[in-house]
Amino acid sequence: MAVNGLNGVNGTRSKHDISTLKVNQSRLMDAIHGGCKYGAAHRYGDHPTETGMARLSLNDADKQIRDWFLATAKSLNCKTSIDQMGNLFAIRPGKNAAAPPIMMGSHLDTQPTGGRYDGILGVNAGLEVLKVLHENNVETEGSIGVVNWTNEEGARFPMMAVASGVWAEVVPLETAWNLAEVSPGEDGHKRTMKQELERIGYLGSQPASYRAMPMACHFELHIEQGPSLETERKRIGVVKGVQAFKWFEITVKGRDTHAGTTPFYARMDSMLCAAKLIVESNAIVKKFGGLATTGILNADPGSINTMAHTVTFTLDIRHVEDDKLSEIEKACREAFSRISEKESEKGCKIEWKELVDSPAVKFHPDCIAAVEASTKEVCQDLPMTSEDGQLWRYMISGAGHDSCYTNRRCPTSMIFTPTKDGISHNPQEYCSPEDCAIGAQVLLGAVLRYDKLRAD
Amino acid sequence: MAVNGLNGVNGTRSKHDISTLKVNQSRLMDAIHGGCKYGAAHRYGDHPTETGMARLSLNDADKQIRDWFLATAKSLNCKTSIDQMGNLFAIRPGKNAAAPPIMMGSHLDTQPTGGRYDGILGVNAGLEVLKVLHENNVETEGSIGVVNWTNEEGARFPMMAVASGVWAEVVPLETAWNLAEVSPGEDGHKRTMKQELERIGYLGSQPASYRAMPMACHFELHIEQGPSLETERKRIGVVKGVQAFKWFEITVKGRDTHAGTTPFYARMDSMLCAAKLIVESNAIVKKFGGLATTGILNADPGSINTMAHTVTFTLDIRHVEDDKLSEIEKACREAFSRISEKESEKGCKIEWKELVDSPAVKFHPDCIAAVEASTKEVCQDLPMTSEDGQLWRYMISGAGHDSCYTNRRCPTSMIFTPTKDGISHNPQEYCSPEDCAIGAQVLLGAVLRYDKLRAD
Ligand SMILES: NC(=O)NCCC(=O)O
Ligand SMILES: NC(=O)NCCC(=O)O
Repeated sequence: MAVNGLNGVNGTRSKHDISTLKVNQSRLMDAIHGGCKYGAAHRYGDHPTETGMARLSLNDADKQIRDWFLATAKSLNCKTSIDQMGNLFAIRPGKNAAAPPIMMGSHLDTQPTGGRYDGILGVNAGLEVLKVLHENNVETEGSIGVVNWTNEEGARFPMMAVASGVWAEVVPLETAWNLAEVSPGEDGHKRTMKQELERIGYLGSQPASYRAMPMACHFELHIEQGPSLETERKRIGVVKGVQAFKWFEITVKGRDTHAGTTPFYARMDSMLCAAKLIVESNAIVKKFGGLATTGILNADPGSINTMAHTVTFTLDIRHVEDDKLSEIEKACREAFSRISEKESEKGCKIEWKELVDSPAVKFHPDCIAAVEASTKEVCQDLPMTSEDGQLWRYMISGAGHDSCYTNRRCPTSMIFTPTKDGISHNPQEYCSPEDCAIGAQVLLGAVLRYDKLRAD
Repeated sequence: MAVNGLNGVNGTRSKHDISTLKVNQSRLMDAIHGGCKYGAAHRYGDHPTETGMARLSLNDADKQIRDWFLATAKSLNCKTSIDQMGNLFAIRPGKNAAAPPIMMGSHLDTQPTGGRYDGILGVNAGLEVLKVLHENNVETEGSIGVVNWTNEEGARFPMMAVASGVWAEVVPLETAWNLAEVSPGEDGHKRTMKQELERIGYLGSQPASYRAMPMACHFELHIEQGPSLETERKRIGVVKGVQAFKWFEITVKGRDTHAGTTPFYARMDSMLCAAKLIVESNAIVKKFGGLATTGILNADPGSINTMAHTVTFTLDIRHVEDDKLSEIEKACREAFSRISEKESEKGCKIEWKELVDSPAVKFHPDCIAAVEASTKEVCQDLPMTSEDGQLWRYMISGAGHDSCYTNRRCPTSMIFTPTKDGISHNPQEYCSPEDCAIGAQVLLGAVLRYDKLRAD
């Protein structure tokens, strides 16, 4: 791909400028940590930034960061809009303002014990790119924007990236609107997404669809969330795809009887059954080289000396290959049935509810090429730390992202930055200021390259 | 033991009257089901009595049934009192009113998915005995009373029989008062026993102690809660003791990291660890011929795609022999440590908190003899259903009861009635009206025999 920079007209920046445009590291970090005052939680050190985050989608802190996002976008003369899923769009018009914009997207919601980078880095890097274009009076070929996708984490409403899923017309709007939060509020009731969108004032009128908001392409900068880049002392991951995963809610129905008087043969112990299923799912995925995780488990009625009549737990299974993920699911279904036919688990009924089905994703070659070219340029100026003499590598993402859904409707790819100790979904999640800025710089270069590409 | 009935004086009943005093089955059943309007829940059939109960200790329904208990006792000219644990005493004076009363005790609190008999039968049978004495103008040698013990189930406040434990001076009053409920209320806060005693107006001033409220003896009628009597077609269990049990709250501390990006070697998966511990505890107790149950499990933070950093679960272990129970605990402790040192559980920290330690109980021979004599008399008149030609049997209770604690301070024993399908701690828990009345009749006979015995 040729990299020629921008055409200069009327005082706007000229050709060959891509390499001279630089993101501002301290401004980027100030924005990241400044925004983290909304929803900061789980302090682990004395420094003001040594906290994690608990900005669950559509909670009060999420409303505050949304207000901040729109104010920031407006200060950069962006056109802003809100769709029916509360997705926020900020668009900086280019020469050809009629053409779909190039979008830089990620999310501002976090896990309940989340960190300061997952999603947050991507949105802030997008805004930083707009700031660089703004302060340098860069006129791009087409429009360039940033999107903050709603409820990417799936932590509060149990469908990850549900709002980009609606945009892609993969998830029906009503399904998403009716999604209930995983744990009830203080009054014992579970809110739906629509109720919470209304409550915080972010139920927009713009249809949540790629038809109403088409995109030229979608780039997402994100922390890797795993250990590879750090271990190999590389600075950038050029992400070619995302592994497949599925989420299930599994309900085990047994019988509530007395813990002291019910002999094992007369039990239908839903908790013991669930425990065996969790252990078994782990053994199964290991055989296939996949992953399995149970993060939520609820037992009813919840009494020490009474067996639970119902246990509900979540199962997250992953594999880089779709076929292998299907085999894992099949093996789990068979093993779970078998387990529920024996011993104290005999008679337990097992119900599977699929919450998320995210097939393996292959990103678009044009976007990957733009990221790769930008990465190579940025890495040229950095000290060599990696043993194999290359500061970047291709990667497959272990985590799902909104980019999985945008990829169905427009060319998409992602950029990864190192993550300390590979730890994410944890208050101590960390990416150094230098690495955040390098990632944002790669994003800037990829966007401008793609802008040039489409103009050519 | 000689059975001579009562000495008649001044119009009171004469000798040989024990066998002519009869409990009133329909009055007993009306009282049981009438009281169940307070806290009825979990309807399973059309008949008005086809519901279970959710009268958790010190909730609003428990206040209502307590008011009803005191009103009933007063209508029988009983002296009533309330102690610092909310235990309710109703005493019908005998000839020698200074001597400690013979008490018939059980409880009116239930499991969250409880039935209409567990505890409720015992208290109502006690009141029915008082009604029979009252309507027949029986003057007993000593006083005879009924006690409703607070929070026997341990379902809301996680120590079974905690209030008889305080009475026995085994559990310190402050420990009991400060016990927090297992699940938070609507406002997210966990109430303590003392707060709830105050709230419902049942924090009495009488010291909760066997010194302030001494008892001549304690009899408890209860449903068996297991399948033995029904299976063997017997009508009465003469209970000689209670198996040993312990309750623990076990906390597994791991690390919250991403479900899709954290390889197994880098996990500290507290949920997988907890699941393995539950499965292992089951395997261990099976080797020893004991029981193990996990009824409560909570995972924090509770997100589908994040490992829980903390999982807390309860473990209820039981065995008829104290030594074997100790061996089970030891084996569990060793196995749990071992499990937390390997695979994805490596690095998880396991903490044990003992909630209840209830050693095996042997009831008092005098009480057992009174129950046995009464049982034999009652069974004489019943159709033979049992293959071995005997309508009653000796039993060891699988469940703990307030009688475990009273037995430390006064002669105690229990009477069991059949339980349909052995099912208890379940809305469909059932004991037929005939069996309820037979149990109450045995209780009446045991009490009058003991009254006679102490006078002799
Ligand atoms: N980026 C991220 O952690 N998203 C959550 C979706 C997933 O579970 O992979
Ligand atoms: N009676 C009864 O079920 N009490 C609960 C105490 C126990 O767990 O054994």
